[in-house]
Amino acid sequence: MQERITMNHGAGGEGMQKLLHDIILAPLKAQGMEIGLEQMDDSGIIDDIVLTTDGHTVKPLFYPGGDIGRLSICGTVNDISAMGAEPVGLSLGLIMEDGLELDILKRVIESIACTCQECGVPVIAGDTKVVEKGAIEKLMITTSGIGRMSQNLEINNEKLVAMTGRKQKWLQDCNLRPGDDIIITGTIGDHGISLMSFREGYNFQTTLESDNAPLNGLMDEALQIGGLVAAKDPTRGGVANALNEWASKSKVGIIIEEEKLPFNPQVRAASELLGIDPLEVGNEGKFIIGCAPEFTEHVLATLKSHKYGKDASVIGKASADVKRVVMHTSVGGKRIIEAPAGDPVPRIC
Amino acid sequence: MQERITMNHGAGGEGMQKLLHDIILAPLKAQGMEIGLEQMDDSGIIDDIVLTTDGHTVKPLFYPGGDIGRLSICGTVNDISAMGAEPVGLSLGLIMEDGLELDILKRVIESIACTCQECGVPVIAGDTKVVEKGAIEKLMITTSGIGRMSQNLEINNEKLVAMTGRKQKWLQDCNLRPGDDIIITGTIGDHGISLMSFREGYNFQTTLESDNAPLNGLMDEALQIGGLVAAKDPTRGGVANALNEWASKSKVGIIIEEEKLPFNPQVRAASELLGIDPLEVGNEGKFIIGCAPEFTEHVLATLKSHKYGKDASVIGKASADVKRVVMHTSVGGKRIIEAPAGDPVPRIC
Repeated sequence: MQERITMNHGAGGEGMQKLLHDIILAPLKAQGMEIGLEQMDDSGIIDDIVLTTDGHTVKPLFYPGGDIGRLSICGTVNDISAMGAEPVGLSLGLIMEDGLELDILKRVIESIACTCQECGVPVIAGDTKVVEKGAIEKLMITTSGIGRMSQNLEINNEKLVAMTGRKQKWLQDCNLRPGDDIIITGTIGDHGISLMSFREGYNFQTTLESDNAPLNGLMDEALQIGGLVAAKDPTRGGVANALNEWASKSKVGIIIEEEKLPFNPQVRAASELLGIDPLEVGNEGKFIIGCAPEFTEHVLATLKSHKYGKDASVIGKASADVKRVVMHTSVGGKRIIEAPAGDPVPRIC
Repeated sequence: MQERITMNHGAGGEGMQKLLHDIILAPLKAQGMEIGLEQMDDSGIIDDIVLTTDGHTVKPLFYPGGDIGRLSICGTVNDISAMGAEPVGLSLGLIMEDGLELDILKRVIESIACTCQECGVPVIAGDTKVVEKGAIEKLMITTSGIGRMSQNLEINNEKLVAMTGRKQKWLQDCNLRPGDDIIITGTIGDHGISLMSFREGYNFQTTLESDNAPLNGLMDEALQIGGLVAAKDPTRGGVANALNEWASKSKVGIIIEEEKLPFNPQVRAASELLGIDPLEVGNEGKFIIGCAPEFTEHVLATLKSHKYGKDASVIGKASADVKRVVMHTSVGGKRIIEAPAGDPVPRIC
């Protein structure tokens, strides 16, 4: 039987991982770059220029706490910042459905402009395409961005090597070592669960919002403290997927303490109602950060003093004692956190 | 009445220009970049990093002379090369329809890999999204690329300033001056007319092919000769649109000699049959080049010695004598070449 792409391939997690490896990465393997496709990090790097791209499709286009415009800017800025790099410019590829109301386009562009202003990263290139009426939710946006080595990342790396002897250039998924602390910069699952609640018509709208936010400013402050070894924005597939990627690429186990996981109470309630694990849904304004333990206390305090990090929490540790991602549950048990086969909430980022 | 996006907005030409200016560029205007959105050049530039993006939708995905994969790589490589910059890395944003056959995806990725190999530019970042069945032709690709100042561009600029006193950094649409020669690197209209003929089932398929080609190698050789002031790849809206952009941004007139325009005979025949002006359709392996006249002979000879430039021809001159783009026709008349309101051949790039 003819094999086909399914919605599951686009939802993060294992379905997509396998597709990427077998069909896309293998033929495109190339030499000569610092961080290439096969590392599957948040961005690629060549000649010290960081490049990332992300296609955004979200239903509906406007939702509590954000919209496709803010989403597309934050997603790309955060992918660059997750390498420790400084985002310097963005490109927008707009794919518009024939019949899209100009007022909708205007609102989205205004939201993009506003988010660019907030994070200080301009759109410097763009393209528009119009497609026939059909399955896209009126508008899709593929955003790309470039970044570069920053003074703050150099400070971070110098402090790290001085205190621990560990040399690094970028914050990479493969940098974790046993003993490193795992920090999350805020509450988990807000984007995915709020979108799903909104779509299903549950009455959480007034208080439950997406966490859409550009995190380059937060990253800058953390880097100045020093000791960061890895960072990742847990979008598709959520925190569960991001931790599994780290464990696999760094060849370490990760132990997470359930009681340390920060959740918005409404997210907890809504995920129970929806039957969705908030660890498996996308976040759009959070980093997980791997931090050398010598620096953790100071990094955490700095994160907490930032408006996008006030709920930051140390949620666990990289460890040689386990081989996978293991959660110590609140009731004293253990649960293996698997990479989800797909995001349980479709079309959210 | 509610204003809406129409297919015409996506087809290049005036409909798109107005949309871009009013709704997209104005709110996104930002300071501090060398070449930003409002210049609407082939790429944006910030901190000496060139960034470009292009969404590709073509029907059918495979056509004589190319496919969406080759198209997406060439389009981006050429947008960077058109600034005189050296393309160094690409990103791929794949948008796949639920149900896309994996064999099709494999063929497209292989074509991408093959084209990357040919032009020596690797894919370093990527993203995949799956959307519900609908209007996209199974697969859309938004490609972005980064480039940088190259030694060849420095050579070009040094020779230009030594011979003419004209200083420049990048090849920009606003650099043309009266007296500059206008060169096209090969036959006009092959991509658009061959695609349209193929779709309509005309029997030109065996000989009429898209010109899909990466032109960074051709640009390198021309830059080494020196004297290039501007370059542009005439994709959506074709040569007519590209010349009008030059005239308007450089505030010069352009005079084109009809008898110098290189056409593949089948393109001429097919465009008459289809009733389409080949000057208004997209090319995917051609540059128009503005060249200081002191260098034209040598640049032309160099272009002609390259496999992608063998039909290169000087087609006219920038001029202070006219205010627009004017064609001297073969029969001794004059015709104003307008920027087309839209590409007459939809969904070709």
